[in-house]
Amino acid sequence: MEKIDLRRRHLLAGTAGAAALMASGVRVSAQEADVGPLPEYVEFKDADALIIHSNNTIETKRDVFGVQPITSEHQLYVRNNVTPPDESIVADREAWEVSIEGVANPGSVSVGDLKRMGVETVAMVLQCSGNGRAFFEHETSGTQWQTGAAGCVMWTGVPLRTVVENMGGVVDGAQFVTGTGGEEIPEGLNEADVIVERSVPLDALDNILLAWDMNGEPISLAHGGPLRMIVPGFTGVNNVKYIKRVAMTEVETDALIQRQRYRLVPLGESGSPEYPSVWQMEVKSWITGPLEAAASGMHQITGLAFGGVNAVDGVEVSLDDGETWEAAEFVGPDLGRYAWRPFVLAKDLAPGSYRIVSRATDSEGNQQPEAPEPNQSGYNHNGWRAPGVDVTIS
Amino acid sequence: MEKIDLRRRHLLAGTAGAAALMASGVRVSAQEADVGPLPEYVEFKDADALIIHSNNTIETKRDVFGVQPITSEHQLYVRNNVTPPDESIVADREAWEVSIEGVANPGSVSVGDLKRMGVETVAMVLQCSGNGRAFFEHETSGTQWQTGAAGCVMWTGVPLRTVVENMGGVVDGAQFVTGTGGEEIPEGLNEADVIVERSVPLDALDNILLAWDMNGEPISLAHGGPLRMIVPGFTGVNNVKYIKRVAMTEVETDALIQRQRYRLVPLGESGSPEYPSVWQMEVKSWITGPLEAAASGMHQITGLAFGGVNAVDGVEVSLDDGETWEAAEFVGPDLGRYAWRPFVLAKDLAPGSYRIVSRATDSEGNQQPEAPEPNQSGYNHNGWRAPGVDVTIS
Repeated sequence: MEKIDLRRRHLLAGTAGAAALMASGVRVSAQEADVGPLPEYVEFKDADALIIHSNNTIETKRDVFGVQPITSEHQLYVRNNVTPPDESIVADREAWEVSIEGVANPGSVSVGDLKRMGVETVAMVLQCSGNGRAFFEHETSGTQWQTGAAGCVMWTGVPLRTVVENMGGVVDGAQFVTGTGGEEIPEGLNEADVIVERSVPLDALDNILLAWDMNGEPISLAHGGPLRMIVPGFTGVNNVKYIKRVAMTEVETDALIQRQRYRLVPLGESGSPEYPSVWQMEVKSWITGPLEAAASGMHQITGLAFGGVNAVDGVEVSLDDGETWEAAEFVGPDLGRYAWRPFVLAKDLAPGSYRIVSRATDSEGNQQPEAPEPNQSGYNHNGWRAPGVDVTIS
Repeated sequence: MEKIDLRRRHLLAGTAGAAALMASGVRVSAQEADVGPLPEYVEFKDADALIIHSNNTIETKRDVFGVQPITSEHQLYVRNNVTPPDESIVADREAWEVSIEGVANPGSVSVGDLKRMGVETVAMVLQCSGNGRAFFEHETSGTQWQTGAAGCVMWTGVPLRTVVENMGGVVDGAQFVTGTGGEEIPEGLNEADVIVERSVPLDALDNILLAWDMNGEPISLAHGGPLRMIVPGFTGVNNVKYIKRVAMTEVETDALIQRQRYRLVPLGESGSPEYPSVWQMEVKSWITGPLEAAASGMHQITGLAFGGVNAVDGVEVSLDDGETWEAAEFVGPDLGRYAWRPFVLAKDLAPGSYRIVSRATDSEGNQQPEAPEPNQSGYNHNGWRAPGVDVTIS
């Protein structure tokens, strides 16, 4: 995959089209400039708001976020590991069944039954494990996501804890919640190599939802409807779509997507269970505006910050690439521990060049690093320096 | 306008289509059953979620709300007093200008300039003054709204207080904020009879936003874009669309929509300034499910509650038309004082007939009345009895 250095592209800055590409030092795959039509299964989305990397990898443009508390579905990123199932599975949503295993009284439960068991709503940052991959300095394969493989969405469903208690409680010895997606395995392929099956630590059980609604509406097929396992604070891949089986298990699944992929692996190594899984998200933020050259005077410098598995506690902004920092203010309602918080810093900007960066701190005192430890596949980027934006004020 | 008694329509109950009509004692205009196509200016909306009363009055179906924290734009009700302006006014949103008057240094400000002055987001129940009109016992003209001329949406814009301070502050003697909409006045009509110009008390100034985004996206023309004056806690009409002038004034506007319409007038009287304006909303709630006949067993009884100008503090549910009450629990994040809160009461329902009602209390201890004082035009219905739903469990 050809990579181009955006430093050279600074010559193009100042036009709206180049706005999303202005972060210096970001390597962007050549395909990024080639915005094709939306694939049919996400035709309802807003093409103008999106960067189409491929059929299964679609990113939200940075300037779209602004101070959005909630990301609407038609602006939300898409990342599918496997081709989604047929639309027919959302034709009768209430009939979809999920098998609950690793409980005293295992069995299948329909969405209709789940809806009668309990209901809760959580606002959560949904973020692809690879969001920010383009900001790593080392060469990585995989989609060169910048800031837009993330959104803040609200999920409504039944707490898994309620379901498990209705079925007699967790069996002794269980250490993981293992969720299996309902994607069809293409003929001739080894199921374990393709299946979307993820295990997360059992202590996530108290937060997990089996969700049927996103942002107050039935979850679309593209985003995992009719039923998705939501693990607040964990990266996207752990939020298994078309969930057809949830098992409390003693060991992690042996599926390739768990055993080898989505591991934090040293550079040059291959994924294996000896390396940590990509699970909990860490504190992170980025600037959403201004992204373009502008006139001097008062500006509202905006961005988004979240704590991942913790609440975000505060965020600072620097106009000089981290030499000096000022506290920004959160904007709008606090949607809870797992949501992001839009922020703003009002500044009267004199003519000149600014490198604007942001740095958030979570409720446990963890602060974004200047740059994260690199890992082979480029997961979990939460550094503050690389996502900075260069803005010329005249 | 012909009215039919829904008590007779109970014979139809049990089918999904009749679900929204099941509240007994509700008079519904005949046109309600005639769901035509969506008018062109709101073609992007979800017709299946809506009851189309007329071109300018479109209601959200009761069963759509569920436990939605936020109402998506394509499910949100529409109520326009005057035909909206041409789409061209949202072609260059930043260029739209609003005249700020009744300040030390009056003048025009563009949306582009407003965006540089400040930014805030508020979640707010947007509710038509006539929502619930169908629940009044007396005969009323006007759209027979039930529960769906309301939604909870998030507005992003600049606090009017910030704008006013940037322009030297409010002039002495001002007692109202008067907003003027940008609708075109059809030729041959008297401007004062048609213009959408509303005055609200000056003490609302600290909460008012001049908003350009709704739910994180530019406000559509149908909902008042490119700029709308948002008065949290006040009924829809006070949230002036296409705002082109905001004036701090000594007296209320003489426009018909303020002087005569939207007044709480005793039965048989005509509107005039001697009667109170329809301004602040009061505490209110309604059941959103179940609305249909169902099987016995565990059910999640859901609804929405809000405090209007105050925060909502709690809500109770009764299964026997108000004989006995049980506290329900709020679901999901608290979006702030002006937002609604979805609620749930889990109940194991034995076979039988239930009349389900809900009754909310606000942070000041105000509780929904059994029925509000009637007023000629049927504004501000917040009684708990009439919106109840009859559900048969077998």
